[in-house]
Amino acid sequence: MNVKEVKIVFQPSGKNVVVPVGTTILNAAKKCGFKINIPCGGNGTCGKCRMRISSGSTEITQSDKTFFNGSELARGWRLACKAVVNGDIVVDVPQSSLVDSHHQIVTSIGRRQKVELCPPVKKMYVQLPEAGLEDSRSDLTRVKDALGTGNIPMSLLRELPHKLRDGQFGATFTVLGDKITVIDSGDTSGKFYGAAFDIGTTTVAGKLLCLRTGKELAVVSRMNPQVSFGDDVVSRINYACRSEADLAAISGAITAAIDEMCGQLCTQAAVDAADVACITVAGNTTMLELFCRIDPKPLGEMPFISAFADGQWVCSRALGLDVCKNAQVFIFPVIGSFVGGDTTACIIASDILKDHRKMLMIDIGTNGEIVLRNQGRLTASSTAAGPALEGARISCGMRATTGAIEKIDFDDDVRISVIGGGEPVGICGSAIIDIAACLLNAGIVTSTGQMLTAAELGGSVAPAIAARLTVDEQGSPEFIIAQAQEKKISITQRDIRELQLASGAIRAGINILLKHGGIAIDELDEILIAGGFGFYIRQENAQRIGLLPHVSDQGKITYIGNAALAGAELALLSEAKLQQAREAAVQTKHTELSLDMDFQMEFATAMLFPEN
Amino acid sequence: MNVKEVKIVFQPSGKNVVVPVGTTILNAAKKCGFKINIPCGGNGTCGKCRMRISSGSTEITQSDKTFFNGSELARGWRLACKAVVNGDIVVDVPQSSLVDSHHQIVTSIGRRQKVELCPPVKKMYVQLPEAGLEDSRSDLTRVKDALGTGNIPMSLLRELPHKLRDGQFGATFTVLGDKITVIDSGDTSGKFYGAAFDIGTTTVAGKLLCLRTGKELAVVSRMNPQVSFGDDVVSRINYACRSEADLAAISGAITAAIDEMCGQLCTQAAVDAADVACITVAGNTTMLELFCRIDPKPLGEMPFISAFADGQWVCSRALGLDVCKNAQVFIFPVIGSFVGGDTTACIIASDILKDHRKMLMIDIGTNGEIVLRNQGRLTASSTAAGPALEGARISCGMRATTGAIEKIDFDDDVRISVIGGGEPVGICGSAIIDIAACLLNAGIVTSTGQMLTAAELGGSVAPAIAARLTVDEQGSPEFIIAQAQEKKISITQRDIRELQLASGAIRAGINILLKHGGIAIDELDEILIAGGFGFYIRQENAQRIGLLPHVSDQGKITYIGNAALAGAELALLSEAKLQQAREAAVQTKHTELSLDMDFQMEFATAMLFPEN
Repeated sequence: MNVKEVKIVFQPSGKNVVVPVGTTILNAAKKCGFKINIPCGGNGTCGKCRMRISSGSTEITQSDKTFFNGSELARGWRLACKAVVNGDIVVDVPQSSLVDSHHQIVTSIGRRQKVELCPPVKKMYVQLPEAGLEDSRSDLTRVKDALGTGNIPMSLLRELPHKLRDGQFGATFTVLGDKITVIDSGDTSGKFYGAAFDIGTTTVAGKLLCLRTGKELAVVSRMNPQVSFGDDVVSRINYACRSEADLAAISGAITAAIDEMCGQLCTQAAVDAADVACITVAGNTTMLELFCRIDPKPLGEMPFISAFADGQWVCSRALGLDVCKNAQVFIFPVIGSFVGGDTTACIIASDILKDHRKMLMIDIGTNGEIVLRNQGRLTASSTAAGPALEGARISCGMRATTGAIEKIDFDDDVRISVIGGGEPVGICGSAIIDIAACLLNAGIVTSTGQMLTAAELGGSVAPAIAARLTVDEQGSPEFIIAQAQEKKISITQRDIRELQLASGAIRAGINILLKHGGIAIDELDEILIAGGFGFYIRQENAQRIGLLPHVSDQGKITYIGNAALAGAELALLSEAKLQQAREAAVQTKHTELSLDMDFQMEFATAMLFPEN
Repeated sequence: MNVKEVKIVFQPSGKNVVVPVGTTILNAAKKCGFKINIPCGGNGTCGKCRMRISSGSTEITQSDKTFFNGSELARGWRLACKAVVNGDIVVDVPQSSLVDSHHQIVTSIGRRQKVELCPPVKKMYVQLPEAGLEDSRSDLTRVKDALGTGNIPMSLLRELPHKLRDGQFGATFTVLGDKITVIDSGDTSGKFYGAAFDIGTTTVAGKLLCLRTGKELAVVSRMNPQVSFGDDVVSRINYACRSEADLAAISGAITAAIDEMCGQLCTQAAVDAADVACITVAGNTTMLELFCRIDPKPLGEMPFISAFADGQWVCSRALGLDVCKNAQVFIFPVIGSFVGGDTTACIIASDILKDHRKMLMIDIGTNGEIVLRNQGRLTASSTAAGPALEGARISCGMRATTGAIEKIDFDDDVRISVIGGGEPVGICGSAIIDIAACLLNAGIVTSTGQMLTAAELGGSVAPAIAARLTVDEQGSPEFIIAQAQEKKISITQRDIRELQLASGAIRAGINILLKHGGIAIDELDEILIAGGFGFYIRQENAQRIGLLPHVSDQGKITYIGNAALAGAELALLSEAKLQQAREAAVQTKHTELSLDMDFQMEFATAMLFPEN
């Protein structure tokens, strides 16, 4: 039998194959080694394997009619899986019809989970056929036929003719959805980076990742500069609402900080900031609105309304970011006025949207966010803990960086351990919990939080420890932790009160959420503790001061670190995780604690330290 | 029988109705007087009647599962046609699910045709439910639920909280596709305007329309200020390619002119320029690229490639337009490097894409564009006629405005008619054709275009006319048409040569296109003549000089005026016509005349005036 054979040339690669008449374009493409995107298995129902026949033709199938309009059909668009070849043809294969060859499996950002590396922002190199008298398509048409999209802002359209010709019609396109966001001459697809940020009320943390490999390249963190405008969200909202100029000032402070941190990350990793294609930003609702320079007034007064809930894509320049000038920025979706994008980020990092067990997640920060998963639903609340657990508003408090006392034990005297090992400079959150637990255990602080004087103490306290009790200038009790060269590091009665407020607020939130859910702490399958310092606090001490509840099975408690930042990283690497954050924002019910009658009572009770 | 009844409240209008259990939301909505958009007739297959149940619920149908994802279903989204009510519910009706009540029929822009008034840019007033503790949706979620889209740029998101509250949650949204482009407090839907422009190489014309009624409110036209950079497209391309600064200068000139003309239009019509929601711009490929400040270098050299082909939406500010700061600008799709957006605009104005007869359309301007419809296909060419027919490059030439001689006849002397009736200032295109025809008929100009001297003339010329023949400073023949106070108005040998070039180029284009199409002039069903001055030129004179071919049935020739501007107006009023322009750009085949061997020969022949 003599079967007629035909030649199929695939553009822009130029790969070609000779196949018998009657072969589908899909099968011919497979023979050439193309990995075509066919979620429907090649049944003509998903419309993903779009290709354009630029020379020759195939018959228009029923599937083609479903997925293409008249002018597209006229221009040669077909579904490869259904198009049967009867003569020599040339086929343009858009990048969007190929399975992304970068796909890999990464794990262990946030809670250990498998994530496919498929960033929401893509970077694709294409070698376009050069223009000639026989192929005088416009520059943008040429791009659209290869890439599957020609959606481009005017600023880039102005660059397009030069960029294409500078690279002999080889160019790299950065694409978000169907929107082209950057054009480079030649192949720059190897330079593809992303930055993830968590803007906390007190601490801002950021990471630089390689979006080709998923690898972490650099980390930075610093105090949120807005602390100088007020150390909790309410005081910042009040500041921002005073005038347009005040809003610009408080917003400009965080914008400048993020911009600087972007620069630091790129310098650390020796990466050109122009190659950062995407930035994801988690943070509570107020932090995100201030970062976006949105007047937060409606957020600060009844009925507490946020400007947006769904995640927002913004180009970096629209946010006043100059360093990563080519980046598309994703602002995390928020659940409610006080349960924000940090919580949705924590939810995707902890994977509790997909985990069907009974779970509680606590994100400890200046706001404590608590999420309960029960009976298949997520409920979330936030409580204003204040910055004590991040070392702020504490007389000798500091962030958990070099010089911070991070761990305190009592034996016959006080034993401390300092980050970096040198002279202590102050105490960070984990050590504040430690010292409070130690003072409680020693009987120096009572369950009401009162710090006793040396005179009031019994003889049970080791002399070296008792000797550290003194009074400050105002005559209030003070406990000297360490005497550094420059100054003494102590904890005061006032510091203990701040800690009581912070711990009490979070604990009351936990209690109310469990109560609303009708579930007891021991019925939970797992308790996840998140927070910038969550890896370091000692569970028994956190339980001693009442911050965390006692559970019969301590193994149920898992520390997941800075889950908000981890969530921001995941959204950078995985379109599916970013989408999950959007779903989490819609599916999580927000319980407003400030409107809850029981909360004040719970709060008052939880402020007391538990009896031992 | 005792049928249970339930109450359905529709938001944001608050309209409500009591219906028996089992009624569909669609039928309940109809009872309330809503005109719901149901192209599928209510069969659950088009997905247009989306509504959101904000209180109460209905069962999720199979159709719902097809059109909504899990989180949308969870938020209460249903198709009204399939949703059966079983209890009291509150339903949010998005504006997008309603048939636009503004739809009307307008006619007679361009060639007489019926067009549904349905602008691509929409302006919708919605009264949103006010935020409260029981309804603490974010501002943007509230907008999205009512409008069907929450796609908003950061600049508008920043305005949203104030704009909503200033109007007690009543606001007007201007929307392009799914993109919100303007937000006004309160109901401003009555202030809804659009401007249409045709940027010709020599003449720029613009109109202001009311987008609610389709009515024309103001008209302006002026000389294209780029004339000072070169009077044809090639010289402009060469100028723009010299440097970045030269491109900015030549581009800035037209931007400034359009901006000023926008201001004039709004002043004439007493319209606030901020209420102009849309601007459509037709023009040849070079004019559009220069208007967009795109370097036209690839357009000016082989293989003549344009930057874009498909129509582009751009916000006015990205184009440097300041007056209509809220407008979305549509740049017409182009067919090829020298057959541009003016031709696609002419195609929709003349409706030849949908008219299945054999037709020829000629758009006479500095570039002559010719479109042939034959055997169901459109073919287009352009020829560089030069600006003579618009009165430029002619010694006493001017545009067709007050003071221009627009009509010339010979009897015993020269008879002229002047626009505005006063003292003549110069001659416009139609009179240039007239004078050439008269001089030919009088034997003063020969068929080779030579102007005879008085001495060379026979005695057949009326003495008063013969007396007008003189010689200019260079000693070339010159014919005095009129002697005005300040100066004489004449036509020179050089003017006749310019006219020969213009007329010859257009006629050669017509001949080549007909030849390629294998069709004779008398086989055509209709010949459409477009152009800024097309209404005024006298057919017998245009045929006398050879610009237009002789046809056996003169009734086949129709003048359709400035069809490019009419097409721009149509795109402003009708999304469907705008879409047709995109289709026309794809479906029209571009024949590049400069590459045609026959063209030079045809041109040389057509430059000769026909023997009488």
